[in-house]
Amino acid sequence: MSRVHVHRVNVTFGDCDPAGIVFFPNFSRWMDQASLNFFMACGVPPWRELVKTRGIVGTPLLEIHTRFLRPATYGEEIQVHTTVEEWAVKTFRHRHVVRRGDELLCEGTEVRAFVVRDPDDPERIRAIPIPEDIKALCL
Amino acid sequence: MSRVHVHRVNVTFGDCDPAGIVFFPNFSRWMDQASLNFFMACGVPPWRELVKTRGIVGTPLLEIHTRFLRPATYGEEIQVHTTVEEWAVKTFRHRHVVRRGDELLCEGTEVRAFVVRDPDDPERIRAIPIPEDIKALCL
Amino acid sequence: MSRVHVHRVNVTFGDCDPAGIVFFPNFSRWMDQASLNFFMACGVPPWRELVKTRGIVGTPLLEIHTRFLRPATYGEEIQVHTTVEEWAVKTFRHRHVVRRGDELLCEGTEVRAFVVRDPDDPERIRAIPIPEDIKALCL
Amino acid sequence: MSRVHVHRVNVTFGDCDPAGIVFFPNFSRWMDQASLNFFMACGVPPWRELVKTRGIVGTPLLEIHTRFLRPATYGEEIQVHTTVEEWAVKTFRHRHVVRRGDELLCEGTEVRAFVVRDPDDPERIRAIPIPEDIKALCL
Repeated sequence: MSRVHVHRVNVTFGDCDPAGIVFFPNFSRWMDQASLNFFMACGVPPWRELVKTRGIVGTPLLEIHTRFLRPATYGEEIQVHTTVEEWAVKTFRHRHVVRRGDELLCEGTEVRAFVVRDPDDPERIRAIPIPEDIKALCL
Repeated sequence: MSRVHVHRVNVTFGDCDPAGIVFFPNFSRWMDQASLNFFMACGVPPWRELVKTRGIVGTPLLEIHTRFLRPATYGEEIQVHTTVEEWAVKTFRHRHVVRRGDELLCEGTEVRAFVVRDPDDPERIRAIPIPEDIKALCL
Repeated sequence: MSRVHVHRVNVTFGDCDPAGIVFFPNFSRWMDQASLNFFMACGVPPWRELVKTRGIVGTPLLEIHTRFLRPATYGEEIQVHTTVEEWAVKTFRHRHVVRRGDELLCEGTEVRAFVVRDPDDPERIRAIPIPEDIKALCL
Repeated sequence: MSRVHVHRVNVTFGDCDPAGIVFFPNFSRWMDQASLNFFMACGVPPWRELVKTRGIVGTPLLEIHTRFLRPATYGEEIQVHTTVEEWAVKTFRHRHVVRRGDELLCEGTEVRAFVVRDPDDPERIRAIPIPEDIKALCL
């Protein structure tokens, strides 16, 4: 497991669709923000620093799975509660639970990998084993 | 099963992130476009017409599941191949296969429901049984 | 003139483009958020309330003008300082000054109008004179 | 002056806001797409090629000015007509006219510059004189 980080989002007018509720890809966007904020809150530098010091470009997504339970609308604050629920050799799995106070709005998992540019072809990226020092910061 | 509809997307600069590849929530956005285009290609009116004639507000998401296999970048055309792979009583499941020519980039499912405004509380929406005439148009 | 409201934005990875800097339409998005937050901070209810009590749908844009001076990137907090610098009969003009601490990043104006649905054709909207009570809350 | 390029956009559900019309920053996004498409239609390679061959990162915005005349909604096709209306020494000005068939929806200008990474500080970018060969392709 890991630490828990809470990312707060104020839902805005432009996040909502003609039905007046959050356009769902924004939940993926907020989970992505929550993931980076999780690592930064654990003491990991932002990717634009890590790319210079260690070649790590970021943690792109391999898979997402999200269930939507209740809608949200603008003017509301929602909270994304983020953990790493599993560390594999080359991947890890986030769990994000999105609440509005006590109400569960949405919950999802993300499978991600740490990637570097391929030295043979800088256009390509490839996964590396989970860096032990980064993992240690997150526990 | 259902018809197959192909939704073409030209990936733009603003769809890409600092790693130079498509920011992944855009794939959800394109699958959402593909879903509406699927229904319109089958002869179903846009939601803003259906809400007036039948009270149907749209087909919000209950669940999404997406696997990301290869990245895409701007200047490329990608194709979203959309079907309905299962019709349940009150929900249906789309499959979206995203290709760049022969290459598989990403694939995902969406579980959706047709919803109307709750007559007792127009702030709320509720699922209705899949309308048989709409389903018939899609087969 | 008017009150000044400060809207704080944490720039995220997904807000940035392949050049690694904020994709500029996001500044327009943040100014739009700042506008609604300005009114709500002055005590004006959100549009989804005003539409029910007074038919006011919102304050759509008639014109924007923005100058971009310095880029911003993810992991940074920026501040949007918002005022109404002119009240005309049927329009008003916001000024938004976007800073990162002491540095000026971007500044712009927005001309907006309060609109209601046209009673003869609810598909259309039309501008109304600036509501005096709303203006009074903002001074 | 310059060639004219027409960029076609199919407005989607997720481009629209709770008022049911296009959320205005999307017009800026479409003008940005139209700008890159303009150059590519003139035979200029995409920025990710030019950065490798000539160090040109792109054409970031210095200033935008947009007037909004009529709204658009999803299910509609709109056309962005793009020209370069002025070439200065280090900047150029686009004009974008957005139409839905014969109706004028929105029109705007963008002032942009061609930029390269600063050799002394690759974190910074700086404007270069308009490349004569690129300009020649656009006339």
